[in-house]
Amino acid sequence: MNINVGLIGYKFMGKAHSHAYLDMPKFFKPDAIPVMKVLCGRDEAGVREVANIFGWQEIETSWERLIERKDIDLIDITAPTNVHKEIAVAAARAGKNILCEKPLAMNVKEAREMLEAAESAGVKHMIGFNYRRVPAIALAKKLIEDGAIGKIYHFRAVYLQDWIVDPNFPLVWRLQRDVAGSGSLGDLGAHLIDIARFLVGEFDELIGMSETFIKERPLAVSMTGLSAKAGEAKDRGTVTVDDAALFLTRFQNGALGSFEATRFAPGRKNYNSFEVNGSEGSIVFNLERMNELQFCSGNDPQETGGFRTIMVTEPVHPYISAWWPPGHIIGYEHTFIHEVYDLCNAIASDTPVEPNFYDGVKCQEVLEAVEVSTRERRWVKISEL
Amino acid sequence: MNINVGLIGYKFMGKAHSHAYLDMPKFFKPDAIPVMKVLCGRDEAGVREVANIFGWQEIETSWERLIERKDIDLIDITAPTNVHKEIAVAAARAGKNILCEKPLAMNVKEAREMLEAAESAGVKHMIGFNYRRVPAIALAKKLIEDGAIGKIYHFRAVYLQDWIVDPNFPLVWRLQRDVAGSGSLGDLGAHLIDIARFLVGEFDELIGMSETFIKERPLAVSMTGLSAKAGEAKDRGTVTVDDAALFLTRFQNGALGSFEATRFAPGRKNYNSFEVNGSEGSIVFNLERMNELQFCSGNDPQETGGFRTIMVTEPVHPYISAWWPPGHIIGYEHTFIHEVYDLCNAIASDTPVEPNFYDGVKCQEVLEAVEVSTRERRWVKISEL
Amino acid sequence: MNINVGLIGYKFMGKAHSHAYLDMPKFFKPDAIPVMKVLCGRDEAGVREVANIFGWQEIETSWERLIERKDIDLIDITAPTNVHKEIAVAAARAGKNILCEKPLAMNVKEAREMLEAAESAGVKHMIGFNYRRVPAIALAKKLIEDGAIGKIYHFRAVYLQDWIVDPNFPLVWRLQRDVAGSGSLGDLGAHLIDIARFLVGEFDELIGMSETFIKERPLAVSMTGLSAKAGEAKDRGTVTVDDAALFLTRFQNGALGSFEATRFAPGRKNYNSFEVNGSEGSIVFNLERMNELQFCSGNDPQETGGFRTIMVTEPVHPYISAWWPPGHIIGYEHTFIHEVYDLCNAIASDTPVEPNFYDGVKCQEVLEAVEVSTRERRWVKISEL
Amino acid sequence: MNINVGLIGYKFMGKAHSHAYLDMPKFFKPDAIPVMKVLCGRDEAGVREVANIFGWQEIETSWERLIERKDIDLIDITAPTNVHKEIAVAAARAGKNILCEKPLAMNVKEAREMLEAAESAGVKHMIGFNYRRVPAIALAKKLIEDGAIGKIYHFRAVYLQDWIVDPNFPLVWRLQRDVAGSGSLGDLGAHLIDIARFLVGEFDELIGMSETFIKERPLAVSMTGLSAKAGEAKDRGTVTVDDAALFLTRFQNGALGSFEATRFAPGRKNYNSFEVNGSEGSIVFNLERMNELQFCSGNDPQETGGFRTIMVTEPVHPYISAWWPPGHIIGYEHTFIHEVYDLCNAIASDTPVEPNFYDGVKCQEVLEAVEVSTRERRWVKISEL
Repeated sequence: MNINVGLIGYKFMGKAHSHAYLDMPKFFKPDAIPVMKVLCGRDEAGVREVANIFGWQEIETSWERLIERKDIDLIDITAPTNVHKEIAVAAARAGKNILCEKPLAMNVKEAREMLEAAESAGVKHMIGFNYRRVPAIALAKKLIEDGAIGKIYHFRAVYLQDWIVDPNFPLVWRLQRDVAGSGSLGDLGAHLIDIARFLVGEFDELIGMSETFIKERPLAVSMTGLSAKAGEAKDRGTVTVDDAALFLTRFQNGALGSFEATRFAPGRKNYNSFEVNGSEGSIVFNLERMNELQFCSGNDPQETGGFRTIMVTEPVHPYISAWWPPGHIIGYEHTFIHEVYDLCNAIASDTPVEPNFYDGVKCQEVLEAVEVSTRERRWVKISEL
Repeated sequence: MNINVGLIGYKFMGKAHSHAYLDMPKFFKPDAIPVMKVLCGRDEAGVREVANIFGWQEIETSWERLIERKDIDLIDITAPTNVHKEIAVAAARAGKNILCEKPLAMNVKEAREMLEAAESAGVKHMIGFNYRRVPAIALAKKLIEDGAIGKIYHFRAVYLQDWIVDPNFPLVWRLQRDVAGSGSLGDLGAHLIDIARFLVGEFDELIGMSETFIKERPLAVSMTGLSAKAGEAKDRGTVTVDDAALFLTRFQNGALGSFEATRFAPGRKNYNSFEVNGSEGSIVFNLERMNELQFCSGNDPQETGGFRTIMVTEPVHPYISAWWPPGHIIGYEHTFIHEVYDLCNAIASDTPVEPNFYDGVKCQEVLEAVEVSTRERRWVKISEL
Repeated sequence: MNINVGLIGYKFMGKAHSHAYLDMPKFFKPDAIPVMKVLCGRDEAGVREVANIFGWQEIETSWERLIERKDIDLIDITAPTNVHKEIAVAAARAGKNILCEKPLAMNVKEAREMLEAAESAGVKHMIGFNYRRVPAIALAKKLIEDGAIGKIYHFRAVYLQDWIVDPNFPLVWRLQRDVAGSGSLGDLGAHLIDIARFLVGEFDELIGMSETFIKERPLAVSMTGLSAKAGEAKDRGTVTVDDAALFLTRFQNGALGSFEATRFAPGRKNYNSFEVNGSEGSIVFNLERMNELQFCSGNDPQETGGFRTIMVTEPVHPYISAWWPPGHIIGYEHTFIHEVYDLCNAIASDTPVEPNFYDGVKCQEVLEAVEVSTRERRWVKISEL
Repeated sequence: MNINVGLIGYKFMGKAHSHAYLDMPKFFKPDAIPVMKVLCGRDEAGVREVANIFGWQEIETSWERLIERKDIDLIDITAPTNVHKEIAVAAARAGKNILCEKPLAMNVKEAREMLEAAESAGVKHMIGFNYRRVPAIALAKKLIEDGAIGKIYHFRAVYLQDWIVDPNFPLVWRLQRDVAGSGSLGDLGAHLIDIARFLVGEFDELIGMSETFIKERPLAVSMTGLSAKAGEAKDRGTVTVDDAALFLTRFQNGALGSFEATRFAPGRKNYNSFEVNGSEGSIVFNLERMNELQFCSGNDPQETGGFRTIMVTEPVHPYISAWWPPGHIIGYEHTFIHEVYDLCNAIASDTPVEPNFYDGVKCQEVLEAVEVSTRERRWVKISEL
């Protein structure tokens, strides 16, 4: 069985997805093979170049036309957040299966529309929380389900980067609310929220805060269309998203959670790190060392207890039997390969895949709760939204 | 010059302080030498045994009598929190210099009385936040003052232990509010608060939460006096303090802070760890590796930038020239030696020493703000208290 | 410009190379594009399957026929060591450029024949010491050339694995001298030797030792052809290679070296680790954390000196600008992509590439010196060979 | 029971031992209490100062007079290596128990005389290989004896420091053969040898090499008595010991060993680190993190196997019940306290203590074998000596 893919977007995420479709069948034996049919983007020259490089058979410059095509089975959306909803709803109505990058939408309302559309249409839908498919995180999930750390008491997570610490870093699209939706919260925090839901469960209530440390930045060279507010120097613009966001939460199962996302942590490049403490043990992970999982079992003898560093590169570990011998590590892009593998199998077998738009909605609710909570300076129940 | 010391308490902290007075003049050359004059405690046999071991010249079984003695220059209080105020105020009125263990008092009101009494009496006063005198933390302070990490954006700290994860661990005094004041918050969180004030500055506002995961525990063998509430099985009692406490804060200088104290983190034995992110760099510390400081300088070339592990065992590092050659580490008890060294010098030179009761009050305000915030589920300004 | 590739071998290394040819032009912009023309192996069904998966245009089951083809520009040899020489010499005589896996040959004599043949024919030749193209190791090379650690005093390296600790692990081809040439020495030690030559320089003399801890093992299922010696149980065979090999060396520049390769280090999966100490600093690397390099500069202030962990994922780092944003790590297979990239460029520009057969010969000399030294229990000068 | 101690030497080691006698009975309950009777050294003013600081009751300026005293039970020798033998033999003949710093003597002959003298006299004798009493190393010993890592295949150890990398560091006594005996070999290597014997067993044969990288150095200010060789600039002298020494060994039980000691490893302050690999697991230690032991058990499930970091600060760990709560680390000087504790108990109970002069002799044999092997460029059997 083949799955004809139409991919929208050809920049960073577009390349990561293109590569995943290309490489996946080289290492895995999926029940359905993705066919790199159409790459879609607005700039014809740009799209054509990437399509040629990665071997997409055709290009389109209009996502509407792409969706109209009968020969496309799967629409993959890596365009900016502000167009997710429109594309996804149209794709669903056209009966296409959908893979959509995170965060799912600009707000809960949009996200729910997308879920509703996909469910009504009966198509497969998936959201690109690729870190669920880091083997070490998949192993963490398995250990928790096996009861290896018992009842969960604590989840604490940070996602730290440093790429905009320099006040002269320009006002790129990720720093503009109308395109990106939010800043560190939606970009980094969304990953933490999904991991938390994956490992711990649903959020009950939360209290949040956020900050924009650098309130104006130079306009990016490519940003001629950006409207500067009156009174601003014409070569600087206002940062309209958060530089950092923090929140505390209580999960429905009684566990306590602490979250922090920031782009102002010098030396932290992609430091997505979490710790889970349970009645029987603890688990620690850090994306910069994504092939490792720290695990402490309360059942070890006191004499030899401690955190063990598991090299998650053994054939018994999730996804690893497709790769290299033990100790030969994999990288960031492999998470997309695993994602595409599971999606193709789900389509082939007509079974649900996770994380899907439901997970996207639940994440969006938490994101929105953080924003409401921050704005209104109060605890917010997820059920309010 | 000699300083005659009267030490109240002879258990864990009493031994740590006894050892500090004993060892300090062996390695340092203070301007005044502490004389181990009187050890004081209620149980005569117990006091006498420890006094003999450590070489205290005399014992007392009444702190009131101790304070009345004319030959005592310094009262050192390591008794439980609920008696700090009464002793300290009396000692101040008797003109004694005072070293008091943390947290300073049961509440802000008591703490302020203590500060007022000490200031009125013109005595030296110090609070036992010994971690300021971990060489690595003293180095962090120096680096921050030197501008090595620039303007501070983030402070995040956790203090994780695991000694009461077992639900059958008994209801010791640290789990009872009327003796201990609070649980993880006052015991562990107080240290984090003091480090934060030391490194970042004053708190502006905060929002907190806490939890008691195990609500009843077996009575400790020695707890015959504990009154069980009606309806409780007579061999179990109610835990009246927090097992874990978390809070978010905004500092007066605009930095954001995240704090977590818990005794429910399996595998974490004494994991007092913090990270500071500034505009020019970052600093990371973990008490379990207290001879190391992680430092990332934004001024390093991009090619060779990264967190460096400083072995804080060089003669140029704070307090280290008194100790061993580079790479020969020191331990927990050395922090008390450094504390006593600085206190003796302050008394000799009649200059203030930090942290003192003012710092104790400021810490107590934050602790109380966390409790108010937790109870009332709202942001609390420190200035409210 | 296109380079038509004929790849011999389709197992572990064959797949790694296939993937490299496939992926390289997706991320890099080489001066010549490799065309996946022919995959060659003895088992037609097996070859065909891998060829289909990776997109090789044709297959051959005879390497002789492959070499006779006019349309092949590059012969890539991933077959076992004992056939390297015959293939490489024939390929060179046919005017083909050659990439050959390591170790180059069964002995120095063979290796020199290969170098002689390739040089006489004027073809490009490269040996697959892929770890030179780990970005962190390439960075180490650059730092050393820049003088960042000054004059080198020490190089110490270990390559530790644990896959044959179990005495019931079968007698696979890597444990048989007539196929593999040697055991841990040629498999793991060869990598260390090449890294040492890359970073430090040529070996002057050495003294070695080795051991075979488990002298007999069960025959592998596929090993029906293996002739058991008289007196052996018919289902067990003799291990004819080293399980571990160690040697000390003096480099021509006066630095001292220590090397150890073993497959008997439980918990070490692919622990290829080295440390270089020079007059001005030190460098440390570990392949299990291949995206990191530890660097200590003697020029740092004493107060803040220490080993820094460089995340070698910045655009300024070797090969990284082709990949993902900072902190998004790459994996094992990327080293082959970098290797193929540099080789294609060398062919396109008709310039030499390193490491080549000369490096293969020099490595083989060291390997042979270790064997002679071990057998004769004496120091051996490389120049003796 | 009391043990009257006479300590010879009052510099670095003298202070470490003084502190140990002082502190030990504060934390442990030994069967005999050491009494700090006499401190002995040639410079009366210097001795008196240290004696006053640490509370030695009396001083002597002649070790001969010290040994003649009837009231001394234990002679503790921390003077330079070249006087160990004379003092120890005299002390033994006078019926004194003896603690002697390492290395035991200038050569095997001297060491054997010392052992013979002590055994003939029937006194207790101990050698100051204090690292056996690092709790983590004592735990490693226990784990090995319990079979936790099975049959030992490999021991590899390095002791790296960097304090003489600067060529202008002066020619202190440790760099002069006639006083120090050897350089890095006897100072650092001796520790590694003793740990190896402690954990693995006796050496069978070895091959060594060494180097003096900086052959001349400025005379130390205090070195007026040093005779410069003819032709040397009068303000520089010749370094007569090794800067670095390496050797490979085969233990009697068949394990292979690798050793390296150097003072030329920038950034390594006191990096005494070893790894032991056995059939069932591995153990790793590093003195700069002396409260931790890395342990990998081959019996862990493959899914969760890996090196665990044991915080060796639990009451069940060797020596720790005398100290602080879990996670509160101890330091370098505690090793001497543990040493003195065990020695006092051995004297009180009239039972042997280890390591003793026999261990000193065995270590000296290995040191001498390294020197012979280095000089004669050949494998040397320990049994030759």
